Amino acid sequence: MSRKNDKRNRLVEAANDLIYQQTFNSTTLADIATKAEVPLGNVYYYFKTKDDILKAVVLKRSAVLQELFTTWDQQFAQAKDRLRAFIRHSIESADTTARFGCEMGSLCQELGKYSGELSHLAAELMHKTLNWVESQFKALGKNEETASTLAKYLISSMQGVSLLTLTFKDPSLIQRQSKNLENWLEAA
Amino acid sequence: MSRKNDKRNRLVEAANDLIYQQTFNSTTLADIATKAEVPLGNVYYYFKTKDDILKAVVLKRSAVLQELFTTWDQQFAQAKDRLRAFIRHSIESADTTARFGCEMGSLCQELGKYSGELSHLAAELMHKTLNWVESQFKALGKNEETASTLAKYLISSMQGVSLLTLTFKDPSLIQRQSKNLENWLEAA
Repeated sequence: MSRKNDKRNRLVEAANDLIYQQTFNSTTLADIATKAEVPLGNVYYYFKTKDDILKAVVLKRSAVLQELFTTWDQQFAQAKDRLRAFIRHSIESADTTARFGCEMGSLCQELGKYSGELSHLAAELMHKTLNWVESQFKALGKNEETASTLAKYLISSMQGVSLLTLTFKDPSLIQRQSKNLENWLEAA
Repeated sequence: MSRKNDKRNRLVEAANDLIYQQTFNSTTLADIATKAEVPLGNVYYYFKTKDDILKAVVLKRSAVLQELFTTWDQQFAQAKDRLRAFIRHSIESADTTARFGCEMGSLCQELGKYSGELSHLAAELMHKTLNWVESQFKALGKNEETASTLAKYLISSMQGVSLLTLTFKDPSLIQRQSKNLENWLEAA
């Protein structure tokens, strides 16, 4: 990787973490530059505005999601096993969720308040996740409508518990909920 | 009401709306003063810091919640009817939720990222809601643990769907979910 790309990546990485840990709104370009160890004057070479960095962060998060989904698609032949992996994945980050919330959910919550491009950006990640979960329910033989309902139920359940986990700073909420959702999945 | 109290109330009211519509972090004291039509210099007479206004906003929201709960407690003899009123209440604000999210949920999401007093403040509103819902399930004869599990399920379901409603700008999600939750409540 060229040193130029390396600097750009460091900026996106730093922005990703700061946006997650302290919200997009309270993250300044200066914060990002400091964390990335890139002189502030250099930031403008890569990103004209904070919104441009956000776009790069969303692209990065989208690629990470895609990688997870592809891994599960290849690792498990059965759609139920893939969905189980998706549910269990939230347990791994339970401690971080108790500190900062769900990475995707909290961005959707913050940017959803704004109209226009910013709110669409965050929604893209949620759409991607919903589509993947829906496709797994279709692979289980559910029709379009049922698959959509089940996918929304699963994702909204996980999002709701992530919020309670953050609010009460209690990672055990996600652990218990994941077990319930695995049982629900067995019966679905 | 004295004119002094009137000014203070206007500031709290304006802060309440702005925090809901554009997040706490992006709301400045100047925004609040402008919306309340109070000279910025006067704000400091009532509130030393933005955190102080937030405290007043949370107190106000807590009083509004208490009023709702008291109304339902008095209006309905049966705990199931009270819980049904709680579920249906979210339908009334479905359009606003699609624009700005859940008033309580989005504050918890934002302030939960911070450690210390600010995150506790938002959590108080969630605690209050959880306690009331729990007490209704206890009135239905559920034991402490079951009442707590059911209350967390109900609230996290509603919070999760509020987030999807905001993200996809689709109020019908809350309407459909409320019907499902009413059916779930019948069987609970």
